[in-house]
Amino acid sequence: MNNEFKVTPWEVTGEIDYDLLVDKFGTRKIDEALLERMSKYGELHPMLRRGITYSHRDMDWILDRYDAGDKFVLYTGRGPSGNTHIGHLVTWMFTKHLQDLFDTKLYFQMTDDEKFLFNENLALEDTRTLAYDNILDVIALGFDAKRTRIFLDTECIRTLYPIALKVAKKVTFSTAKAVFGFDNSYNIGTIFYTSIQAAPAFLESEIQKRSVPCLIPCGIDQDAHFRVARDVAPLLGYPKPALLHNKMFPSLMGGEKMSSSQPDTTIFTTDTPKAVKKKIANAFTGGAVSIEEQRKIGGKPDVCSVFKYEYFLFEPDDREINNLSEACKKGEILCGECKKRLTERIVRFLEEHQRKREKARERVEEFMMRDS
Amino acid sequence: MNNEFKVTPWEVTGEIDYDLLVDKFGTRKIDEALLERMSKYGELHPMLRRGITYSHRDMDWILDRYDAGDKFVLYTGRGPSGNTHIGHLVTWMFTKHLQDLFDTKLYFQMTDDEKFLFNENLALEDTRTLAYDNILDVIALGFDAKRTRIFLDTECIRTLYPIALKVAKKVTFSTAKAVFGFDNSYNIGTIFYTSIQAAPAFLESEIQKRSVPCLIPCGIDQDAHFRVARDVAPLLGYPKPALLHNKMFPSLMGGEKMSSSQPDTTIFTTDTPKAVKKKIANAFTGGAVSIEEQRKIGGKPDVCSVFKYEYFLFEPDDREINNLSEACKKGEILCGECKKRLTERIVRFLEEHQRKREKARERVEEFMMRDS
Repeated sequence: MNNEFKVTPWEVTGEIDYDLLVDKFGTRKIDEALLERMSKYGELHPMLRRGITYSHRDMDWILDRYDAGDKFVLYTGRGPSGNTHIGHLVTWMFTKHLQDLFDTKLYFQMTDDEKFLFNENLALEDTRTLAYDNILDVIALGFDAKRTRIFLDTECIRTLYPIALKVAKKVTFSTAKAVFGFDNSYNIGTIFYTSIQAAPAFLESEIQKRSVPCLIPCGIDQDAHFRVARDVAPLLGYPKPALLHNKMFPSLMGGEKMSSSQPDTTIFTTDTPKAVKKKIANAFTGGAVSIEEQRKIGGKPDVCSVFKYEYFLFEPDDREINNLSEACKKGEILCGECKKRLTERIVRFLEEHQRKREKARERVEEFMMRDS
Repeated sequence: MNNEFKVTPWEVTGEIDYDLLVDKFGTRKIDEALLERMSKYGELHPMLRRGITYSHRDMDWILDRYDAGDKFVLYTGRGPSGNTHIGHLVTWMFTKHLQDLFDTKLYFQMTDDEKFLFNENLALEDTRTLAYDNILDVIALGFDAKRTRIFLDTECIRTLYPIALKVAKKVTFSTAKAVFGFDNSYNIGTIFYTSIQAAPAFLESEIQKRSVPCLIPCGIDQDAHFRVARDVAPLLGYPKPALLHNKMFPSLMGGEKMSSSQPDTTIFTTDTPKAVKKKIANAFTGGAVSIEEQRKIGGKPDVCSVFKYEYFLFEPDDREINNLSEACKKGEILCGECKKRLTERIVRFLEEHQRKREKARERVEEFMMRDS
């Protein structure tokens, strides 16, 4: 087991031991029984089948409520600190799958305040501009405008603030320190911020003036916020939000999380075919030093970022992904071939996405929620 | 010198050494030169003449700017934790005097969020209701609706929040801890709150998109907030707000601050003549045990709460107040007489105020500022 990693909402470093995170955070691993239960609502999404969405909180409870006719709302979000990359799309596509499957309302939070507070180099105008740019990617994925409310914290703050105040009143600095690892050098905005991220989980309950369940699909790195939200929920008369956690989308370097701050190892949704080709060409695969040796000892799909991309997103067929893994291990397929295929797939995907992204520009207002 | 007192925005206890506070907070005492300068704009207000408004920050600078044609805005406020008492009116009347004298815009903040966060027993609905009740007292004092914007933090938060975020980003928990005496058991809303109290000081600069000076008349107990605001102002390109500090309005017990939480020693603006009579009858005067003795050794206007009420508000004539003090010291006037006169004056004052207060109900919307 590797303890040399760190997973917080603002920092993911080292080789993540996802099972250890489940223990550390006190979440539940998604087991066979839950997968079987979920498969009754429709074909299991590849992210569930493949254990990319691998952990949860209260998923059984939210399905019980759903089965009893009490529909949940979905809530997810994005910290607009840079351009959207493919890793972001993965969670959002999974969220869209859940929305379609359960026919639910979705709150999509753009945390322009958070990224301003936590990033020395970003002005509020920057995070606002980035938020509106990122929103194009959300809309391009085909979310249903009727059931999807996208909002910037700063534009919806009169709605969020009273809920955030109620949350904040129940969270001491001691707690925030323990959960997020803050010390006295953190600014007082960062310390308060978790209240703002908790608020949308309780928004539908506030609007409907009754207890409305909320399901949050998110990266496991965001769990800290919702541990706090879940702790205070009963004190405020709200239901605890349920969660579905996914693993981090890998970097092209082989690291555990694709990051906008490392543009050379990150595929952005606005990348040109040329840029994609170059990035994939330089991607880490863990392949052998020579073709001869690779033919002999085989490749390592477990550490290969190119394989991970196929696994996370581009190859939804389980048989195909197994074939690919086997062929690699046996040295039947070489890194160059894999890179070529992935490049073609990404270029094709982005071509289509960028077309939809441009169309999305005209549709932003259909999705936006702002203080009335 | 007495060190056994505490003055923070949320706690005023002990016998305050106001000169020591000037040293401790690093403010400037209002000296003869400043009084002389201020007298050129119009007759000096009794609060200035009598040293009730006794300390300042950058008052010379704000007058320099004013003389150069750069008009300041006024900003003051109220924490709606209970009904308005006479002590509140004193600062507000002084603020109105400044508004009339300098013909300036006034932002009047009702900190419903603050009082919710700092008071375990108040819900947001409570502080909101109290805010709207307190607003009647503000309006009753005759502020000019055209130049006065009253707002609740929760109703104006979309306007305040971006400014508050900029402030918050520059204030560490270490700083907040040192300035306000927070420890780890404080809730994360209280820690962030000072950013919200700083925001209105910079609002006019944001609106006009230029550097607009701001003058804040307030109790010396509020200085901590504006020390922080002044420290961050240059980092954000705003002018440092100037301040005029007044002493605390005394309690009828003889203590240093009238407090809504001790209703028996506090005259509320909604008190009946009967209630006023009873409270004044029980007021602390420091008088002698018997009439005979008082005739012989005289009274103590310096510690007498009845005298202080005359001094702070009800006897604006300096000669009269001196006569009263002298007569008391010589034993020429007894506590009962003073109480009778003060009761009559307060009852008359409140009768008029309550009439205006009722009329104010129809005018609230003229004064309110809310997020557009």
